Amino acid sequence: MSQKPPPRRSPLPPHDCHLARAFDVIGDRWTLLILRSALYGVRRFDDFASELGAPRTVLADRLKRLTAAGLLARRDYREPRRRARPEYWLTPKGAELRLPFVALTQWGDLWLADGEPPPAAMRSRATGEALRVALVDRSGREVAASEQKLKLSARASASVVEPA
Amino acid sequence: MSQKPPPRRSPLPPHDCHLARAFDVIGDRWTLLILRSALYGVRRFDDFASELGAPRTVLADRLKRLTAAGLLARRDYREPRRRARPEYWLTPKGAELRLPFVALTQWGDLWLADGEPPPAAMRSRATGEALRVALVDRSGREVAASEQKLKLSARASASVVEPA
Repeated sequence: MSQKPPPRRSPLPPHDCHLARAFDVIGDRWTLLILRSALYGVRRFDDFASELGAPRTVLADRLKRLTAAGLLARRDYREPRRRARPEYWLTPKGAELRLPFVALTQWGDLWLADGEPPPAAMRSRATGEALRVALVDRSGREVAASEQKLKLSARASASVVEPA
Repeated sequence: MSQKPPPRRSPLPPHDCHLARAFDVIGDRWTLLILRSALYGVRRFDDFASELGAPRTVLADRLKRLTAAGLLARRDYREPRRRARPEYWLTPKGAELRLPFVALTQWGDLWLADGEPPPAAMRSRATGEALRVALVDRSGREVAASEQKLKLSARASASVVEPA
């Protein structure tokens, strides 16, 4: 096969990339599953544990990391005649993962569905039609993939190291 | 604090959820970083290894899993007077992670940037303006969050187990 050799490196190195930073925070299966359940309203340790089947030490570790990273906030609750226990609430930072998660759900609907219809879909309240994730301009109009380009900032472009 | 108790479980259990399935495939930091580099055009083992600093056994394992899952396809290339070596090309299934990754990048731009401007942004070829991820209807018009609802399929709703 004759072909142009591929780039040796990404134009944007991982340590300068906000996507790679996001992977540092949420790039872990249990973490992602906890956030999924939290977006559905689950807040209590035992409820995460039973829904996910996560080992309790792993769950405790991931909840602690998510709290330290500011995606969850811990608040105590107390049921009558019980001791106080923590609940883990999504912060705005955590809640705003909803859109990336919807985008990834739609990828799963397309590629991991085994022919089943989507079990859950985002729909318009007004018309009931299914909505899809897209890139839009400032007026809220979809911009087709062929009309998009990735632009590196001057700082990022300057930091690109050409491989030897 | 007096408040309504939270739901004990998600309305959509993880084993029926295409988002949770996606986490099974890509919910791993090295896997995500490999896919990021692959979306930037990197294809060769040594290039992934040097860009990511991944241990070679881990990298080999993740490339094998991504190939088995159909996100990467392995093809041999041969440089003059060298033995054949594999390249890992994104399949359409892998390439379509671009949009979820852009969504997650924009989350990172907002929440993980430490006040820096985004090092990379999707822009309109025509106008140069920055584009953002949103939910659109079939005509390609943005639908505001307040006009969206999550709708479970009849099958998914029927499978919801009410906790005891």
